[in-house]
Amino acid sequence: MKVQIPRGTQDILPSDVRTWQWIEEKVKEITKKYRYEEIRTPIFEHTEIFTRGVGDTTDIVQKEMYSFQDRGGRDITLRPEGTAAVVRSYVEKKMYGDPNQPMKLYYLGPMFRYERPQSGRFRQFVQFGVEALGSNDPAIDAEVIALALDVYKSAGLKNLKLVINSLGDKESRISHRQALIDHFKPSIHEFCSDCQNRLEKNPLRILDCKVDREHPLMGSAPSILEFLNEESKAYFGKVCSYLDDLQIDYEIDSTLVRGLDYYNHTTFEIMSSASGFGAITTLCGGGRYNGLVEEFGGPETPGIGFALSIERLIAALEAEGIELDTSDALDLYIVTLGEEAKDYSVKLLNAVRQAGFTADRDYTDRKIKAQLKSADRLNARFVVILGEDELNKGIVQVKEMNTGEQKEVEISSFVQQFTQLFE
Amino acid sequence: MKVQIPRGTQDILPSDVRTWQWIEEKVKEITKKYRYEEIRTPIFEHTEIFTRGVGDTTDIVQKEMYSFQDRGGRDITLRPEGTAAVVRSYVEKKMYGDPNQPMKLYYLGPMFRYERPQSGRFRQFVQFGVEALGSNDPAIDAEVIALALDVYKSAGLKNLKLVINSLGDKESRISHRQALIDHFKPSIHEFCSDCQNRLEKNPLRILDCKVDREHPLMGSAPSILEFLNEESKAYFGKVCSYLDDLQIDYEIDSTLVRGLDYYNHTTFEIMSSASGFGAITTLCGGGRYNGLVEEFGGPETPGIGFALSIERLIAALEAEGIELDTSDALDLYIVTLGEEAKDYSVKLLNAVRQAGFTADRDYTDRKIKAQLKSADRLNARFVVILGEDELNKGIVQVKEMNTGEQKEVEISSFVQQFTQLFE
Repeated sequence: MKVQIPRGTQDILPSDVRTWQWIEEKVKEITKKYRYEEIRTPIFEHTEIFTRGVGDTTDIVQKEMYSFQDRGGRDITLRPEGTAAVVRSYVEKKMYGDPNQPMKLYYLGPMFRYERPQSGRFRQFVQFGVEALGSNDPAIDAEVIALALDVYKSAGLKNLKLVINSLGDKESRISHRQALIDHFKPSIHEFCSDCQNRLEKNPLRILDCKVDREHPLMGSAPSILEFLNEESKAYFGKVCSYLDDLQIDYEIDSTLVRGLDYYNHTTFEIMSSASGFGAITTLCGGGRYNGLVEEFGGPETPGIGFALSIERLIAALEAEGIELDTSDALDLYIVTLGEEAKDYSVKLLNAVRQAGFTADRDYTDRKIKAQLKSADRLNARFVVILGEDELNKGIVQVKEMNTGEQKEVEISSFVQQFTQLFE
Repeated sequence: MKVQIPRGTQDILPSDVRTWQWIEEKVKEITKKYRYEEIRTPIFEHTEIFTRGVGDTTDIVQKEMYSFQDRGGRDITLRPEGTAAVVRSYVEKKMYGDPNQPMKLYYLGPMFRYERPQSGRFRQFVQFGVEALGSNDPAIDAEVIALALDVYKSAGLKNLKLVINSLGDKESRISHRQALIDHFKPSIHEFCSDCQNRLEKNPLRILDCKVDREHPLMGSAPSILEFLNEESKAYFGKVCSYLDDLQIDYEIDSTLVRGLDYYNHTTFEIMSSASGFGAITTLCGGGRYNGLVEEFGGPETPGIGFALSIERLIAALEAEGIELDTSDALDLYIVTLGEEAKDYSVKLLNAVRQAGFTADRDYTDRKIKAQLKSADRLNARFVVILGEDELNKGIVQVKEMNTGEQKEVEISSFVQQFTQLFE
């Protein structure tokens, strides 16, 4: 029997889970300040949600999805990203009818892509993302970017780089698209087969190709920024000026097109510039996707969002040598001597816990010395030794471990007196 | 295109997600008091983990698993329950070598069973569960039961019933098993085909059959409690006496065998006795599974745990008419008048959020009246109206919504003065 975790996935053990919990708390706190509310969609969706919503020319849909038929013959896919499902829910649950527009939503949960596992890249990974659906105000683009940066800053990351671009509106994209085709077509045979396919379907994504990144035609490709119409230019200018107002540094990179088909206007990435962070430096990516809600049968609705991987955030913390404060001390450890004390400790432990303290004892018949070691390992602040003697006298010694101070406490009013030690 | 959620799954929308967050916070708080630490295993495992760990005669394995082959040809199953994966991780990560035994672990996450969807039963559902691995002390059985009850009590549930039983150790189970076969064999043709299969494989599970529950031989079946050997009897007696010590009411039901193959000694269920709760009254089930770690290739290790569904906990809250306190007020809503004010509000909003407050504004060009309605709907505690006039004078009025009181505040020191309103 293969007692093995599936390739490309990981167990998060208690010693590491605290870092995750810390980050999740922060995410909750930050989203609350910005009034983004959590939405939870299922782990899997009908496959069409992603072929339509992510785009069927993307690597995700073509190569990386966990797709299967369920027992009822439905085509089902484990979600590879969060946006398509949130938009599906927005349309299906008719959230466009909610008076609170834009709907400011966030999600936090596992996503699945069948990629080659490598350092910092897993087949199951956790994404935090936000989606603001129903507003075309450039201020919301700036808000979303500020929120993403807040997550990293709150964890103490310093080496961050924000890169932004605009893909413009439909009109701008159509003229740019033609310019790209004209630019690449004469030499397209020199490009990889993926790029050859992209030329007519989605030439913008040639700029995103990892195989042909060094080809001389890449650097000289027509920039989308030169093809923005007035409206798109004004929109992008406003986003940039809001970022200036918020004193957020950014770099404009006209080759930033992102791997998904649905973006327009603002796109952005946040990268780690920490030395030794590794080859994949992108921590977070996002952009505007006006038109996606219509794609799902909803009314015309603008949208913008981002997604970031918690695994990569943790990798960035490691690269900068940042340790989050996740200490988890125990308030009380009860050392027991003899059967009677062990029995009595069940009640005592329960009373202490009911009063709100974290408390524990030994459950493996360890000797007193080993129990004291346990107390030490568990970082217990106070220790009580409970034996026959203590039970007969009705009195125990409560010892504070880091000072060595002892205090005599009556067992009958233990919780009350123990509580006073914390005042 | 099917813009539809998969059958048997649900979106948890912001208005409901708050209840989930409340419960999850409680779970974290309670597990911390008992010193159970979170572990996160992947959403899917190699299928063998469940056929071996859950038992291949169970309904789960035979009828309800989401199994498929991944792109690498591996047999993969979306986890139908939590224990098998936690034990897999305990063995694979050699947690038995950790000095802190028992390992007191908990998990909280989605599980998947392809069942007929019905009220309160979903194909994707969320389980919270704990596993204490490495102790044979009956005090830990009582602790685990007390912890489960704490979750329900903390949410305010009153109509709870705890049912316990003992399946004894291996020796006790073997003699009982023979007695069951002798009891049912002569009339087994009167039972359903599932029960006929169970007779030789696992006759204990006949007692759990939903089809034949009314058959007269069910009531007269030999009770496991009469077959417990001395050791098993003493163990069960100790668990009961600890529950007495903790003033936890319980009922002993010798037909409680649970649907999984791996249980021995203590088994228990917590049920809702609220009127109108519906047909399925079990909220939580658990028990001892000494031997399961060996099944996964680990050293001899006792274990006990439980699992409870958050969906059913929420259904029980509804049945008792309990509303959790999940109110989520907004500290500040900024009403903007004109382009200049809108621009300025980006900065102001950001400053207020950075100071730790929850704040929002309009992003859809609403008129002032509609903006004030939004503020009201979002339960804003304070509202500021920001227009050209205010910007010119450098002064705004901060209005407390439920008292109607206004306070003049200088824009240049807004955050500082706004903070004082909360002191």
